Amino acid sequence: MGAICRAMKNCGLDQLVLVNPSPEMDPVELRKMALKALPIYKNRQEFDSLEEAVADCGAVAMTSGVDGFYRDHASTPRQAAPDLLEIAAQKPIAFVFGSEDKGMRTDELKFATHLLRIPSHHAYSSLNLSQAVMVVTHEIYQAIGDFSLGEEKTPPADHRFLERMFECWDKAMKDIHFCEDAKREHMMLGLRRVLTRGSLTENDVKIMMGLARQASWASKNHPQPQRENNDRPPLP
Amino acid sequence: MGAICRAMKNCGLDQLVLVNPSPEMDPVELRKMALKALPIYKNRQEFDSLEEAVADCGAVAMTSGVDGFYRDHASTPRQAAPDLLEIAAQKPIAFVFGSEDKGMRTDELKFATHLLRIPSHHAYSSLNLSQAVMVVTHEIYQAIGDFSLGEEKTPPADHRFLERMFECWDKAMKDIHFCEDAKREHMMLGLRRVLTRGSLTENDVKIMMGLARQASWASKNHPQPQRENNDRPPLP
Repeated sequence: MGAICRAMKNCGLDQLVLVNPSPEMDPVELRKMALKALPIYKNRQEFDSLEEAVADCGAVAMTSGVDGFYRDHASTPRQAAPDLLEIAAQKPIAFVFGSEDKGMRTDELKFATHLLRIPSHHAYSSLNLSQAVMVVTHEIYQAIGDFSLGEEKTPPADHRFLERMFECWDKAMKDIHFCEDAKREHMMLGLRRVLTRGSLTENDVKIMMGLARQASWASKNHPQPQRENNDRPPLP
Repeated sequence: MGAICRAMKNCGLDQLVLVNPSPEMDPVELRKMALKALPIYKNRQEFDSLEEAVADCGAVAMTSGVDGFYRDHASTPRQAAPDLLEIAAQKPIAFVFGSEDKGMRTDELKFATHLLRIPSHHAYSSLNLSQAVMVVTHEIYQAIGDFSLGEEKTPPADHRFLERMFECWDKAMKDIHFCEDAKREHMMLGLRRVLTRGSLTENDVKIMMGLARQASWASKNHPQPQRENNDRPPLP
C-alpha cells in the first residue's frame, strides 16, 4: 500500500479509493514504503462495493493479467491513455486494480469501460500489485506529457559553428602530424562521423574546438607537463 | 531485491548484476517478493566495481533522479529505447541503478553512455528503486514489442454486416413503435452513432442484430415472461 501511494504521488495522482480493505496494515511498513506519499493513504476514501466507488466516474479502467472470458478486447495502458485522458477532462476516471493474489473477479470486470493488459513476458506475466500501479500511472503520466527533462545550458550548435570546429581539427591533425596529408581528408570524414553521431550543443563544440586548438598550439610550443600552462589559446 | 527480480522476469530479462551488494538480505522477504523470479537472484553475478560490471557492455544506461551537473542531456527511457535496442542486437547493454537512498554517485555517472530520467511529478520525483526498475524494464519490453494482446474470437464486422444490423434496428423501432415514423430516420442516426463509437466484431453485431430481431418478433407474439421461449427467430 505504501509503494502504491508513492507510485501515485510520483505521477501526480492523489485520490486513493479502497474497496473493503483488509484491516491488517502494518503502519511501520506503510510509512517506510510511502515516505512523502503517506498523506495519500491518510486522505483515502473507502467504499463497501466497487459499484459505489466508481459511481461518479466517466471511465472505469481495469487491469487484468488474465486472458479469456470477455477479456479479448483489452488494450495496453499506452493504447488506452489518449481516450481515458479525453474523458478525464470532463469526469473523474478510475483505475481499478484487483487484490494482490486474486486480481479482478469476473463479476467485477463487467463494470469496466476499458480493460487494460500490461505487456509482460509469458514466462511470468503476473506483476506485483504496486508494480502494476506504477506501470499504469507512469503510462498515464507520460501521456499527459506534463514534465520536462533538464535543459541543456546552451542550444544545439549550428552548422557554421560545427564547420569551424572541423577546421580546427583539420589544422590540428596537420600540426600534430597525425597522418600523411593525403590521408587527412579521409581521416576527417571518420572524425566527422564520430562527432556528429549525436547532436552537439555549443558548449560541446567549444570543448572539442578547444582541444584541437590546444593540440595545434602544443605541437609548436612543447609545453612541459610540470609547468602551469597559462598561455593556452583563447576559447573561440 | 525480490521486487526487482520479479520486474525483470515480468519483462523477459534475467541477468542481474550486483556491485558491492549489502550483505543484509532478508531471505524470507526476498522469496516473498521475488516469487517465481527467485532464480534470477540465485543466478546473479557480483562485482567489486561498476567499471568491471559493465566492461563488456555496448551501452551503459544509468537512471538518475537528480538534475544538474552533467545530467542535462538525459532522455526518458522511452526516448532512449530504440537506440539501446539497436546496440543490444550486437552487445549486452547494462541498465544501472543506484542505491535506494543515494542513487548514482557522480563519479559513477561518468561511465554512462545513456543517461535516463524517468518522468515524474515535481511534488515527489524520487521513485522507489524497484519501481524505477519496473518502469525502465517495462519501457524496454514495450519497445521490443514482443507480446500480443488477447485476440478477438471473430474479426471486425464489415460494412455490409453492420448495415444488415441497422436494417434490423430500423425495423424493430417501427415494430415496437419506438417513435413516430417521421422521427425514425433521426433516431437511427443516433443509434448509428452509439453503435459505431468503437469497432464491432462479428460476434458483437450478432448480439445486437439478435436483440433487434427479437424485439420485432416479441412485438407481434407477446411472449409471456413465465413461459419458456423456444421459438425465437434464428440468429442471422
